[in-house]
Amino acid sequence: MPTIVVEVMPKAELLDPQGKAVAGALARIGKDGFSSVRIGKRFEITVDGPVTDAVRAEVEAIANDILSNSVIEDVVGIHYETPAGETH
Amino acid sequence: MPTIVVEVMPKAELLDPQGKAVAGALARIGKDGFSSVRIGKRFEITVDGPVTDAVRAEVEAIANDILSNSVIEDVVGIHYETPAGETH
Repeated sequence: MPTIVVEVMPKAELLDPQGKAVAGALARIGKDGFSSVRIGKRFEITVDGPVTDAVRAEVEAIANDILSNSVIEDVVGIHYETPAGETH
Repeated sequence: MPTIVVEVMPKAELLDPQGKAVAGALARIGKDGFSSVRIGKRFEITVDGPVTDAVRAEVEAIANDILSNSVIEDVVGIHYETPAGETH
């Protein structure tokens, strides 16, 4: 069954305390070539049937209305993976 | 500055209560074409300089050792985005 991947990140202008904590940890262990780390969510949605245009539109609405909070987050990507693992 | 995206998902054989909750919510509001939802993390790491092979190797080690817990999670993708936004 095909899988759709939805990627959600906190809005750029927002403080990301978790990301800052990871960036600080990297610097403390001597990995200092990295200026920032931001952490978001990755959803894998398995679709029962074929990925039609209607399914795409529905996933887009789900991504914006349910999987992300538009006040503090942005949907930064929606990718359609075929069972063979190709992404487009 | 270039951005590296690291994607981490819970291992397939593990129960994903958050994912199940979202899948249940989708079914309850009548969006029933989706058999499962799984939720993972998406890291955006900003690199100070160019993305050399050494930086790639270091990010791979960071992804496996720090950004994911190898007992319950898998690193499912590491993507290198140039400032122009192309991903490879």
